[in-house]
Amino acid sequence: MDNNRLAQQIQFIIEIDKLKNILRQTLLTDESRRENSAEHSWHLAMMAILLTEYAPSTDVDLLRVIKMLLIHDLVEIDAGDTFCYDLPANQNKALREVQAANRLFGMLPEKQGIELQELWQEFETQQTTEAQFAAALDRLQPLLHNQQTRGGTWHLHGISRQQVLQRRSPVKDGGPALWQLVEQAIEDAVAAGYLSE
Amino acid sequence: MDNNRLAQQIQFIIEIDKLKNILRQTLLTDESRRENSAEHSWHLAMMAILLTEYAPSTDVDLLRVIKMLLIHDLVEIDAGDTFCYDLPANQNKALREVQAANRLFGMLPEKQGIELQELWQEFETQQTTEAQFAAALDRLQPLLHNQQTRGGTWHLHGISRQQVLQRRSPVKDGGPALWQLVEQAIEDAVAAGYLSE
Repeated sequence: MDNNRLAQQIQFIIEIDKLKNILRQTLLTDESRRENSAEHSWHLAMMAILLTEYAPSTDVDLLRVIKMLLIHDLVEIDAGDTFCYDLPANQNKALREVQAANRLFGMLPEKQGIELQELWQEFETQQTTEAQFAAALDRLQPLLHNQQTRGGTWHLHGISRQQVLQRRSPVKDGGPALWQLVEQAIEDAVAAGYLSE
Repeated sequence: MDNNRLAQQIQFIIEIDKLKNILRQTLLTDESRRENSAEHSWHLAMMAILLTEYAPSTDVDLLRVIKMLLIHDLVEIDAGDTFCYDLPANQNKALREVQAANRLFGMLPEKQGIELQELWQEFETQQTTEAQFAAALDRLQPLLHNQQTRGGTWHLHGISRQQVLQRRSPVKDGGPALWQLVEQAIEDAVAAGYLSE
């Protein structure tokens, strides 16, 4: 066994523990605290298992979807979580995240690091069915949380129906059968006054 | 599309958000707080991806390993996390967990619920290579955390070398190449006084 190889992998495993301290805007469904990106990634991977049947293609590679979801937020360890409705912060998000990906995946044995970085890029560029299904789940999950928390971050930040519709639109392609859930949740939130017209 | 089926699945997805509030004994590596079982499950699934090459067989089904790791702690939503060195609490753990599994997986469409419950049982009974590799990772991760946190829960609860060696022994079968890491971490912890002889 190559001890140096294993040492690099263990060092990476210890490093990514930091994702548990990256807080998202989303609240837990019991409103007790903000969600962190590690538990969010777990929740998304669970959703991929539970909702595979709604993927846009029947031959979707579930293992690749899950891998993408588990790693998609790792770059936040350096780049932080960027609130999706914060436009100025989103302007340099891509650059910050590429730098983070280079550092983090660069900690691993070369071939393994490249493989994971390519998976992360696949998620970012949204050119495969797997990436589109993964993104649909990533957009659906906070919506379920906001629905459970009386508008949650929508209410808190005065977000509008149109902003949410636009932000959640990847669900249309990545999980068409789930889109009606999104529309219904948005209409309910508008009716309840949690989301502005 | 069967709306009732999707509604059951969404209800389950919302229910399992509770795993983010189940606290384990293990501390995060920065010692800022205790780890919860959802982020722990994410960390284990990441370890499965990163350490597949150390599985006891080259044809291990990685997707099944990851699924098992993602769901293995769900029963704690009802049964709570049981500290592995708390012997009285471990006496009725199995019963409490079976009841939890029946309720939780019973929320899903029948066939899907049975599939996941069988995967959970596969992890519990440790009869397949996948289950053994998954268990090895589950035993290795808290050891890495204790190593990073000056003995962590070992130190806090006055655990002995022999207790740790016994508790971590599944790593020998489930990831033999990782066993030397376990032995080294234990010897280092004894030498540093974090673990009693």
